[in-house]
Amino acid sequence: MKPKDIPWQERPKNSSDVLWRYSENPIIQRDQIPSSNSIFNSAVVPFGDGFAGVFRCDNKAVQMNIFAGLSDDGINWSINHDPIAFKSGNIEEVHVDYKYDPRVTFIEDRYWITWCEGHNGPTIGIGYTFDFKEFFQNENAFLPFNRNGVLFPEKINGKYAMMSRPSDNGHTPFGDIYLSYSPDMKYWGEHRHIMSPTSFKDSAWQCTKIGAGSVPFLTDEGWMMFYHGVITTCNGFRYALGSAILDKNNPNIVKYRTQSYLLTPSVLYEQVGDVPNVVFPCATLQDIEKDRVVIYYGAADTVVAIAFGSISEVIQYTKENSL
Amino acid sequence: MKPKDIPWQERPKNSSDVLWRYSENPIIQRDQIPSSNSIFNSAVVPFGDGFAGVFRCDNKAVQMNIFAGLSDDGINWSINHDPIAFKSGNIEEVHVDYKYDPRVTFIEDRYWITWCEGHNGPTIGIGYTFDFKEFFQNENAFLPFNRNGVLFPEKINGKYAMMSRPSDNGHTPFGDIYLSYSPDMKYWGEHRHIMSPTSFKDSAWQCTKIGAGSVPFLTDEGWMMFYHGVITTCNGFRYALGSAILDKNNPNIVKYRTQSYLLTPSVLYEQVGDVPNVVFPCATLQDIEKDRVVIYYGAADTVVAIAFGSISEVIQYTKENSL
Amino acid sequence: MKPKDIPWQERPKNSSDVLWRYSENPIIQRDQIPSSNSIFNSAVVPFGDGFAGVFRCDNKAVQMNIFAGLSDDGINWSINHDPIAFKSGNIEEVHVDYKYDPRVTFIEDRYWITWCEGHNGPTIGIGYTFDFKEFFQNENAFLPFNRNGVLFPEKINGKYAMMSRPSDNGHTPFGDIYLSYSPDMKYWGEHRHIMSPTSFKDSAWQCTKIGAGSVPFLTDEGWMMFYHGVITTCNGFRYALGSAILDKNNPNIVKYRTQSYLLTPSVLYEQVGDVPNVVFPCATLQDIEKDRVVIYYGAADTVVAIAFGSISEVIQYTKENSL
Amino acid sequence: MKPKDIPWQERPKNSSDVLWRYSENPIIQRDQIPSSNSIFNSAVVPFGDGFAGVFRCDNKAVQMNIFAGLSDDGINWSINHDPIAFKSGNIEEVHVDYKYDPRVTFIEDRYWITWCEGHNGPTIGIGYTFDFKEFFQNENAFLPFNRNGVLFPEKINGKYAMMSRPSDNGHTPFGDIYLSYSPDMKYWGEHRHIMSPTSFKDSAWQCTKIGAGSVPFLTDEGWMMFYHGVITTCNGFRYALGSAILDKNNPNIVKYRTQSYLLTPSVLYEQVGDVPNVVFPCATLQDIEKDRVVIYYGAADTVVAIAFGSISEVIQYTKENSL
Amino acid sequence: MKPKDIPWQERPKNSSDVLWRYSENPIIQRDQIPSSNSIFNSAVVPFGDGFAGVFRCDNKAVQMNIFAGLSDDGINWSINHDPIAFKSGNIEEVHVDYKYDPRVTFIEDRYWITWCEGHNGPTIGIGYTFDFKEFFQNENAFLPFNRNGVLFPEKINGKYAMMSRPSDNGHTPFGDIYLSYSPDMKYWGEHRHIMSPTSFKDSAWQCTKIGAGSVPFLTDEGWMMFYHGVITTCNGFRYALGSAILDKNNPNIVKYRTQSYLLTPSVLYEQVGDVPNVVFPCATLQDIEKDRVVIYYGAADTVVAIAFGSISEVIQYTKENSL
Amino acid sequence: MKPKDIPWQERPKNSSDVLWRYSENPIIQRDQIPSSNSIFNSAVVPFGDGFAGVFRCDNKAVQMNIFAGLSDDGINWSINHDPIAFKSGNIEEVHVDYKYDPRVTFIEDRYWITWCEGHNGPTIGIGYTFDFKEFFQNENAFLPFNRNGVLFPEKINGKYAMMSRPSDNGHTPFGDIYLSYSPDMKYWGEHRHIMSPTSFKDSAWQCTKIGAGSVPFLTDEGWMMFYHGVITTCNGFRYALGSAILDKNNPNIVKYRTQSYLLTPSVLYEQVGDVPNVVFPCATLQDIEKDRVVIYYGAADTVVAIAFGSISEVIQYTKENSL
Repeated sequence: MKPKDIPWQERPKNSSDVLWRYSENPIIQRDQIPSSNSIFNSAVVPFGDGFAGVFRCDNKAVQMNIFAGLSDDGINWSINHDPIAFKSGNIEEVHVDYKYDPRVTFIEDRYWITWCEGHNGPTIGIGYTFDFKEFFQNENAFLPFNRNGVLFPEKINGKYAMMSRPSDNGHTPFGDIYLSYSPDMKYWGEHRHIMSPTSFKDSAWQCTKIGAGSVPFLTDEGWMMFYHGVITTCNGFRYALGSAILDKNNPNIVKYRTQSYLLTPSVLYEQVGDVPNVVFPCATLQDIEKDRVVIYYGAADTVVAIAFGSISEVIQYTKENSL
Repeated sequence: MKPKDIPWQERPKNSSDVLWRYSENPIIQRDQIPSSNSIFNSAVVPFGDGFAGVFRCDNKAVQMNIFAGLSDDGINWSINHDPIAFKSGNIEEVHVDYKYDPRVTFIEDRYWITWCEGHNGPTIGIGYTFDFKEFFQNENAFLPFNRNGVLFPEKINGKYAMMSRPSDNGHTPFGDIYLSYSPDMKYWGEHRHIMSPTSFKDSAWQCTKIGAGSVPFLTDEGWMMFYHGVITTCNGFRYALGSAILDKNNPNIVKYRTQSYLLTPSVLYEQVGDVPNVVFPCATLQDIEKDRVVIYYGAADTVVAIAFGSISEVIQYTKENSL
Repeated sequence: MKPKDIPWQERPKNSSDVLWRYSENPIIQRDQIPSSNSIFNSAVVPFGDGFAGVFRCDNKAVQMNIFAGLSDDGINWSINHDPIAFKSGNIEEVHVDYKYDPRVTFIEDRYWITWCEGHNGPTIGIGYTFDFKEFFQNENAFLPFNRNGVLFPEKINGKYAMMSRPSDNGHTPFGDIYLSYSPDMKYWGEHRHIMSPTSFKDSAWQCTKIGAGSVPFLTDEGWMMFYHGVITTCNGFRYALGSAILDKNNPNIVKYRTQSYLLTPSVLYEQVGDVPNVVFPCATLQDIEKDRVVIYYGAADTVVAIAFGSISEVIQYTKENSL
Repeated sequence: MKPKDIPWQERPKNSSDVLWRYSENPIIQRDQIPSSNSIFNSAVVPFGDGFAGVFRCDNKAVQMNIFAGLSDDGINWSINHDPIAFKSGNIEEVHVDYKYDPRVTFIEDRYWITWCEGHNGPTIGIGYTFDFKEFFQNENAFLPFNRNGVLFPEKINGKYAMMSRPSDNGHTPFGDIYLSYSPDMKYWGEHRHIMSPTSFKDSAWQCTKIGAGSVPFLTDEGWMMFYHGVITTCNGFRYALGSAILDKNNPNIVKYRTQSYLLTPSVLYEQVGDVPNVVFPCATLQDIEKDRVVIYYGAADTVVAIAFGSISEVIQYTKENSL
Repeated sequence: MKPKDIPWQERPKNSSDVLWRYSENPIIQRDQIPSSNSIFNSAVVPFGDGFAGVFRCDNKAVQMNIFAGLSDDGINWSINHDPIAFKSGNIEEVHVDYKYDPRVTFIEDRYWITWCEGHNGPTIGIGYTFDFKEFFQNENAFLPFNRNGVLFPEKINGKYAMMSRPSDNGHTPFGDIYLSYSPDMKYWGEHRHIMSPTSFKDSAWQCTKIGAGSVPFLTDEGWMMFYHGVITTCNGFRYALGSAILDKNNPNIVKYRTQSYLLTPSVLYEQVGDVPNVVFPCATLQDIEKDRVVIYYGAADTVVAIAFGSISEVIQYTKENSL
Repeated sequence: MKPKDIPWQERPKNSSDVLWRYSENPIIQRDQIPSSNSIFNSAVVPFGDGFAGVFRCDNKAVQMNIFAGLSDDGINWSINHDPIAFKSGNIEEVHVDYKYDPRVTFIEDRYWITWCEGHNGPTIGIGYTFDFKEFFQNENAFLPFNRNGVLFPEKINGKYAMMSRPSDNGHTPFGDIYLSYSPDMKYWGEHRHIMSPTSFKDSAWQCTKIGAGSVPFLTDEGWMMFYHGVITTCNGFRYALGSAILDKNNPNIVKYRTQSYLLTPSVLYEQVGDVPNVVFPCATLQDIEKDRVVIYYGAADTVVAIAFGSISEVIQYTKENSL
């Protein structure tokens, strides 16, 4: 699949940051559709001549659901006013307490969507679409309690592969990233622990919990992924963004992982909102040839923002700054 | 009692919100009197040719007390520099640890004030005045621990009626609204449970606790009240504002109650302050003929702001959006 | 009302304890009726030629309810196999989530029963009977959350008087004793704080919370009451028993209160059971002429036990050992 | 598989309990093997001419592991002094932090063992043996955090079926029973929620959390299972034992479930020990023809005890006492 | 040591505040050196013809360390890009987990630096320099857990004197100020408790914990110190700034201490940042002759700001507003 | 100092335990003196022709204090009815909130006593006596919060040496052992961390916190000490006893430390009492020539018990079972 012209803006003069924010952030406002209290933690993917997305829109009753949307340029989005209505995939009855924090990726013949599904507690919901018009829901991947399920964009040794973060039923103050496999998108096993929070001493921004963020994409060094890390301050959690590179053939192996964050809440739309001090990546678009990546992230659990980087520079930084 | 010309500003163009904020908010600054750290969660009432109010002013030692004030227009307020000094009402000795979050309403011949009174823990204090110059304090209504005591503006079946929220001795993470009755403003009983927090799934913004807000006023559909609801995020409580309609003759019955909030912290003076992300209604002024209501609410536990609405539209919305 | 021959056993030789346990304790076993998991925290009163009682029997689903019983000697009890079915007193509909920890006392013409009533959280239920066959339930005395409601056995200055302990909705780790008044057993007010937990330094066994225990009885020094006090250890709460004397004419005034406990869990049936280390007094029988008192208390939340004392010695000890 | 003569003792005279304890309990002492601090929460199965078992023995460093043992009569056990050393089943490398709370059942051609496996937190370990001499370990069934994995003794609709209790990484204060399926004992899916804790009001002994206990066995009414339920007292958790009957063909359906416990800590070896007040069933032996069942349960996290019952009476009680 | 011209700006017109903020705050940005995530809670001292400082710079891995810097005017600072590398003082091996919240003062012949040193938990590190080029580290003053160690700028009765706040290993929700003495900067004793948090009723802004802030300086009334006080809101801790005057000859005696704060988070750079709502003083510069003091404080755990005051006015206010 | 004939009883037949309990335990009952609720966690030392001791006696108000006592045989003790009244040592005024958990040892010319002293929180009190009649109190060793201060019985490199456990102000759920030095029993420094709790996986009985227990005594392998370790169960803390050997010349070095406990609560007087499941060593008597040691320990925070062992066997076990 060839990427469209992804959104882009040059690094600001005087900046030496690895990633830099879009000057017109946030690209999606909290009330962009009539029913929404907030739109954040959302995912995009190249689609047709443009881009498609799956968006977390919490409505004004603060009920969480996911919505489809389209865009020509990846910046200006038209989001449906009604949440996605799933038909039956490999499960007969589709149970729904709530849905949030979607990711989306194309594998073989269709677009797979994963999200946090309410089923007596949060777990990982799975669905797919061919056209972003009709959507199908499969069996949940895991038992509760789980969050941040992120699929690899191709099968690994013939099996689907998904990262996730086992959790509990509230504001989980712990969390590691695991990798699990499935032959059929129905039964899952071969669970491997791949990444833990760090010690406070080694890298405090990710010492409480971590979770997979964007769908990994292949680089010469392996699978590049952006993830979130959390620190507990005396005024609650603060979420920042780091990068990791997993082994190409055996993604159970974390080759590199940044000791420093690449992005931390430091502008007003990240620091102030429904949940202050949150930067939460859920997707990237990348143009390998042009050496560009754009990261889509939720800010302050309220809006969607993007940041840009050079893929080769991110790789270099991740290697040189690795834990 | 006929309403004065209450404060008013038309709904902004392009807005379809049920309530809209005053463009010059906040109307009362945190340091509006010399001693104050913050002024918020305050109540107003028509009085004489203008308006009177009772204000929560925390001083720079962050001690909580209530202060009287007057205004010609309901927006520009002259607040006394000394807190209200209560004389004995139906209790001999007036004990005071602290006072906060006042409400005020006229019943029969006088203005009744209720507030959260420190008496080995928070409970509901009751006082009255005829002229906003001389004030009298009665017996506390209930045993601790209680907050958000709100009187009905007339007797119900011959008895005074008060809503309240039984609490505990700290930052209570639970709370329902009850209704109690008194023949004499001294002894209270007939306690009825009338409203609970919702499930997270049904309406998350009010899933942790709820509390009565403004003094109810009569409409064709029943008693209209604005109340606050609280959600627990990983960074603390967030307070939003909803509306409810209680049965005219038997206010134990909640006829309608909004699933969606009407106002949530989303401008800087509501999102940033001594306690971020708080919208807390304590009073309304209404002009039934002109179909107008103005809501007075504390913002971020720091300042006082107001919002406007059409009574008929609020009623319609509450009915159509009811849980 | 003249006391029957109340249960009695002389102080063991070599003992100098103020109170001493009955050698055949516990007098009521956990499974004394077929449905019961445990019987404890129960109250007795002279009745007819013998004694009547109201018993907390948790059934094998561990649902809490109160049961009536009769006894000739105060030791051997016949407890009904069905819980008390209340008819309407001054309230139309009798709501029941659960009932526990009853107290009982005779005032004027009838036996009044108070207990902890589940009504969206624990509060104080009130009922009465003339004959221990037919029972009537009144309005709850207070808003939740409250426990340990104990009536005085006669009106004080023309009003009913009740002690209680405002609480929260769980295993409350705090608690003071208040005294409230009612002209009619329907509306309650004039709430007065009368006793607090002590500091750890002054009297650690009662430093977490305290609650009224037995119905007070008049002595020359004033109202004699046994109450429970709680300490928090690293292995949970431990409940012990102390005594207090309240002013005869103004029971808001605590004249004396023991710094030392009179009874602490130290025999196996108090130390081991459904909740280890609990001694919880709910009633006394006294014979003023013979200078005898017998205390009924729950042990380890599992069984009922009794202890004996000389009234004059308890008074003397309470005065000399007062905080 | 035909049962041997399982252990048996008649119901004591004067007892009408559904289950009754063995008079010589505990059958396994805490120090029955030289290294053990405690032996409890263990499972047994008919094997050869007698019985085999898998035992949780915590050593004197209080490290948890599982040990094999044999018995002629089901009461006197010879437990190996070394823990089970697993060889590779369908996983190459066998990771072990700790193992505890085993269950065992025969399916088709071998004995399957499940237990709580430490793998960056507790999850469900799976192994098998043909002879109780050589043991093989498979992939863990689920992501952490999980406990109380219990297999059905035959395939359901062609797939292995396992109950489990998703948990967190500590003393989980919540917990429901789920049922999951696997075509191959490697990949798991079709996760169904089947049983929740009850409300405090409905059945308090199981209101905090519940977990599958013994391997289900088929009766005319369906799959009979004994499970544990937990209540939170002010002195910690208390574990009791109930029964449930699941639909024969679709065990996702809970047909009956006891409102009352069948066994609660009430004798000294259940009330006193390393964790007081615990009764924890992990296995049964049953003789359908003789209408007998014997339940093996851990007591006070210290020793193993057994209790007896009539299968038909348990079924009848479960149906009549169902929630 | 004679003060340089310390930074200064006149009190704004219309302001009657005791302290007023510098109009160009913050004076040090979060990313003032390339590696820094945030620079805050830092200390300065007159040095040579200008000023020297020790700065807390958390890097982008959010690891805490202290850095030296120089300034001509006390406002524009040149901070080293590498943290201070300590040589051995009176301890052979220099252990370092982390360093934060430095203070600095000149005593006799050298500049002493104290900070919070990670040594199996936070305690007070001590070092010294003669020239701000070469630094030496001594034995830690105390056992963990301790924070906010602040030296007096001269010996008291021949001994070094240090204030500190015993703490625990996390976000300590309690804390008093103690004063300890040492004959040799190696062994410490004569620990005296000097200041506690206040009751919520008396002065709520400092009711959770307090800690020494700036190095005391001598005035006619005694040692003037600025300290921080903390209140616990439902959205976390809020840090404000007060002043205290200790007895000149016996600083164990607190002569005056402000009931009101002098500065509380109320501008955006104090209210929004890595930890919202923090004002945290660590140093002053004073010009006794000109009656000026400038306070250096960390804002929102993100940047450094300064505020000005008249020494005589602060003294007068502290005396008149004393608890 | 030559040991008297210390208490002794041979190892029971059939026992292979390293330590074995005295058959007549507990040697001191909870009410051995008239005022006591409990006597436990106490220390003994050879004195004159017999033994002296310092005892923790909590009175019936559950106030903690320490009492002196004497014994001819180390088993039958005569404990003073009044607590120790300290005169001034190197501190003028003797402050006392409470005293508990004493240790005692002879150094050079006098008996030194350390204990947990209430001084705005627990810290380490120090006193001395020459004759167990007159007692003197010194400066507290450390700032709060600290517990379990244990002196070495001789100076190390010319300085007094004390182990302690930095803590917090409640039921501390963490804790390591440190070693500090003093030239003069007034100022303390050179704080070294020497022992931490273990991981749950390595040795769960000591995974929550550990604290020094008995005064170390010299063996060929170094300083032998018995200490307590704590595990957190779902029903609270459980305290067990282990041994450690510190380097003779540099006791900062822990040479050996048992992975297994030597004694864990497993008889009724250790499992049941004011705080169930506690074994807490505070002293030993040893007879090097006869290769005997007797350990004095508090049981269930209620009584004093003793256990015996062979010194050489304990050494061997500690070396072979070392972590």
